[in-house]
Amino acid sequence: MERTPRRSHGFKRPALQSKPKEMHEDHVRLAAIGGLEEIGRNMSFIEYKDEIVVIDAGIQFPDEATPGIDFIIPNVTYLAERKDKIKALVLTHAHFDHIGAVPYVIEKLGNPPIYTMNLTKALVEKRQEEFPKAPKLNIVTVQYGDKHKVGENVELEFFGVDHTVPETTGVVIKTPVGNIVHFADFRLEYDADGKVQDIKEFKRIGEMGVHTFMVDSTNAREEGKSQSEKVIEKNLEMLFKEAQGRIILSTFSSMITRLAEIIKIAERLGRKVAVNGRSMKENLQIAQGLGYIKARKDTLIPVEEVHKYKDDHVIILSTGAQGQENSGLMRIVTGEHRHIRIKPGDTIIFSSSVIPGNERSVQRLQDNMTRQGAIVITSGLIDIHVSGHALKDDLELVIKTLKPKFVMPVHGYYFFRFENGRNAVRAGIPPQNVRVFENNGQVAVLTKDQFIITDENLPTNYVMVDGLGVGDVGEVVLRDRLMLAQEGMFVVIATLDRKTGRVMKNPDIISRGFIYLKENHELLDEIRKRVRGIVGRIPHAQSVDSDYVKALIRDQIGQFLYNKTKRRPMVLPVIIEV
Amino acid sequence: MERTPRRSHGFKRPALQSKPKEMHEDHVRLAAIGGLEEIGRNMSFIEYKDEIVVIDAGIQFPDEATPGIDFIIPNVTYLAERKDKIKALVLTHAHFDHIGAVPYVIEKLGNPPIYTMNLTKALVEKRQEEFPKAPKLNIVTVQYGDKHKVGENVELEFFGVDHTVPETTGVVIKTPVGNIVHFADFRLEYDADGKVQDIKEFKRIGEMGVHTFMVDSTNAREEGKSQSEKVIEKNLEMLFKEAQGRIILSTFSSMITRLAEIIKIAERLGRKVAVNGRSMKENLQIAQGLGYIKARKDTLIPVEEVHKYKDDHVIILSTGAQGQENSGLMRIVTGEHRHIRIKPGDTIIFSSSVIPGNERSVQRLQDNMTRQGAIVITSGLIDIHVSGHALKDDLELVIKTLKPKFVMPVHGYYFFRFENGRNAVRAGIPPQNVRVFENNGQVAVLTKDQFIITDENLPTNYVMVDGLGVGDVGEVVLRDRLMLAQEGMFVVIATLDRKTGRVMKNPDIISRGFIYLKENHELLDEIRKRVRGIVGRIPHAQSVDSDYVKALIRDQIGQFLYNKTKRRPMVLPVIIEV
Repeated sequence: MERTPRRSHGFKRPALQSKPKEMHEDHVRLAAIGGLEEIGRNMSFIEYKDEIVVIDAGIQFPDEATPGIDFIIPNVTYLAERKDKIKALVLTHAHFDHIGAVPYVIEKLGNPPIYTMNLTKALVEKRQEEFPKAPKLNIVTVQYGDKHKVGENVELEFFGVDHTVPETTGVVIKTPVGNIVHFADFRLEYDADGKVQDIKEFKRIGEMGVHTFMVDSTNAREEGKSQSEKVIEKNLEMLFKEAQGRIILSTFSSMITRLAEIIKIAERLGRKVAVNGRSMKENLQIAQGLGYIKARKDTLIPVEEVHKYKDDHVIILSTGAQGQENSGLMRIVTGEHRHIRIKPGDTIIFSSSVIPGNERSVQRLQDNMTRQGAIVITSGLIDIHVSGHALKDDLELVIKTLKPKFVMPVHGYYFFRFENGRNAVRAGIPPQNVRVFENNGQVAVLTKDQFIITDENLPTNYVMVDGLGVGDVGEVVLRDRLMLAQEGMFVVIATLDRKTGRVMKNPDIISRGFIYLKENHELLDEIRKRVRGIVGRIPHAQSVDSDYVKALIRDQIGQFLYNKTKRRPMVLPVIIEV
Repeated sequence: MERTPRRSHGFKRPALQSKPKEMHEDHVRLAAIGGLEEIGRNMSFIEYKDEIVVIDAGIQFPDEATPGIDFIIPNVTYLAERKDKIKALVLTHAHFDHIGAVPYVIEKLGNPPIYTMNLTKALVEKRQEEFPKAPKLNIVTVQYGDKHKVGENVELEFFGVDHTVPETTGVVIKTPVGNIVHFADFRLEYDADGKVQDIKEFKRIGEMGVHTFMVDSTNAREEGKSQSEKVIEKNLEMLFKEAQGRIILSTFSSMITRLAEIIKIAERLGRKVAVNGRSMKENLQIAQGLGYIKARKDTLIPVEEVHKYKDDHVIILSTGAQGQENSGLMRIVTGEHRHIRIKPGDTIIFSSSVIPGNERSVQRLQDNMTRQGAIVITSGLIDIHVSGHALKDDLELVIKTLKPKFVMPVHGYYFFRFENGRNAVRAGIPPQNVRVFENNGQVAVLTKDQFIITDENLPTNYVMVDGLGVGDVGEVVLRDRLMLAQEGMFVVIATLDRKTGRVMKNPDIISRGFIYLKENHELLDEIRKRVRGIVGRIPHAQSVDSDYVKALIRDQIGQFLYNKTKRRPMVLPVIIEV
């Protein structure tokens, strides 16, 4: 494809304005604690006098820099210290990067009223059950169009946006300095004439006057506009029709809109649907209970009854599209599933994108499926996964419609948010009114006519959840994990006579992840000799300064190992005095 | 985009044929030792009586499953045992996944004559210099069209294919059972009329008769055909024209064709070119020496003189597009580079795709560049990185032109190769003549009319290079590294009196990557108590069976830690008897 030039538009990195030291004028404080340097752990808030409204409480998934942890939650230090002021926690939609941290932070926030819609409520409450010690939630169910005065000065008004999960709600936060509009995660759905379905509502919000528009930047770099879910539906139906045997389709269990579509298609084609995977089953049940998924009585069948139907009368919906170990899909492929095996003629559809870091395991999964005779279809091949986030043209359109005074790109890395700043300029916002925050935790001060990013920074360092521990895995532990993964470790134990300072026995050595010791006797002998030498050279008379001896061993054995192997395992000396 | 259906064509997973136990008929043995389950460590060979021809000796880069290692090389056990038979090692082109293992395996292969072209020769020899102990290479320089009889029965004929590095050569291996054609890595370059530039040559090869076509599967799943490098060149030129300040462009240093283009464009636009990064400098020098890169005398300037020119008169070419630490680009961004800093107005172009696993570091790099005021352009946004591998339409066209009896997809995961099998069927090859190997190491037996994949499997387990060690990091060490990265480790040292079996002192504990010990005194005390208890319960009279005690500690302390934390660090008990 040749490139159409998209001329530069003069949007530069905005200069930081100086902080008004004491702000006497009426003002709102605004900050995002998470979500500005990652995709995940979304949480932002506004503060006006004694009233705080928090938006979302999401988790971030670990990556190669945070091995072994379960996930990262927002650092709520600042809010916890002001929990009495928190009037509302708004949950915009039922995805984990927006609600996943609720059980971990809700108590610290003082268990404030949660404003959210029915489906999100149901999913949040379901999850809360897994935390017996967490408090009972205090949820106010809202609907599109609802207005809630949550404090003396702050009112919330909810409105509908389109996303991959039903009941995603945007929110207008009405404050004395103006309306702050948060669009949640959103995409646009265009009707047959190319008109945006919610555009009237967006116009109405724009007409109320928008001080600041907090806007999703996930796809801010992508050209074009949202593709209709109808196209996906059509493509899926075509694939389903082509499949001559069973269909196994894997997607995120949180993509409830997609699940609803698939069930509709299945019914049109006379296929039964079996659901494999606990989270998907639960979500489906909840969504069904609320009427978001409509299925005829006999459409859904238990996984254990799949074999009772002809292959071309069955669709299996499964979790595990990311190649996770022990997921439903993985168990099917490895033959560990109690009821389902891959068989030649199966069509397996991955209706989701691969999360970075999972490429290898997804590849292995797909290789094995193909080896077992299945036809594997991925979203790379045809459009069967559409993103839930607005693209460049969508973003421009919405910004033009809302006509906000200020635009604050949220939800994405700096690079993404900066690009969204460019989108805003393209949509007619003066460059000096685009607010690209440098990082999480920066505090802005908003008056009627101003939006000043100050030099105040709230704590935002990672709070990591690992097993039962919340926040106990810190920088040091992570750095050690990364180091251990790269080069392994090498423990040297020298047992000394407390009185003489002499080495009492041959030093013990344990090593893991470095070299296979059983095959390296010579190296070990040499190291033992050196350790004895290091200790032996210390004058006898003086009592042993074990930190000093340890440092000697760490340096000299570390250097020796490096010279021999060009690797730097973590050397851990232990001095036992008896 | 709506989908055009691509009907199924009946290609199923081929059934394995049974092995002819003793093959008396005239036959060739054919196997790929690497490259069939990964992108990388390419190496295959044919064996006819006492003559072996090996093709390529590449490395594979580590991923999340192989932390800390430098790279993986092919397992040459089988070939090393038959080194006297090896008549030739053909190196198809100068990319590391095809030549990177030469210094490590050449001696084991008996230092056979290497057949390759000038540029590859120069780069291989340059690299060999880094291995002072490696033998002098014995290289026969070939040109397109050359024929070399390398044994009694085997002749090689070389022909040109297009790739992202010049002098990529395909090879016809002429054997008594027929011609085996290996196309190296290739793409097609179409001229203005849409004709493939090398098509005549391909026809000629087809007319000689092709028994087996070994064909690149890297892009076998991608619809469409190769995009012309001319389009990339045009897009790059447009970007360069738009840039108002300096241009910093980063790509793989091995993409020599791209480097040549950039220098041409720079000259047209009156910009000087500075090269940042050792590998790129070396490659450029070599390619210049051989005439593949032509630059006017004053075009290339040293990095330290960049500041002498106006910003819009400079292009900096840099390595480090993958966000590698200590790379040229990283040093520029972190401010550690001696001569270059990012400044507002810089345009930074990433002209390469991101290798899976590097997403986070590339993201961080791009975020920081943007923060420093640069405009960052990535290949995701416009076509500035074109793949060096043929797409579906290209593959079909080449297969149709060659009309081989058998097609053997190589270079790619099973899923990719299987898809390439489908391409072959679409190109008119009968499904029963497509040979999708299950895995590396499978041996096929070829007679004039047959191509039988046998149940013989050669050793292909990973040979890992880590520092100075080649092959000493094995499964166990890797598994330990992965485990240490996930949960850390916990060493418990109990010092016992040899005579009484009693614990002599409070047990010592070292832990890394698990929890921060300084903040967990209570837990430690509890563990020490338990260790004393475990040892204390052992009857005094008997001498200590330290393996038994260790097992007890490992299990009980492991379980205790899990109950307390829901984490499973590697528990390593040490018993010191004095």
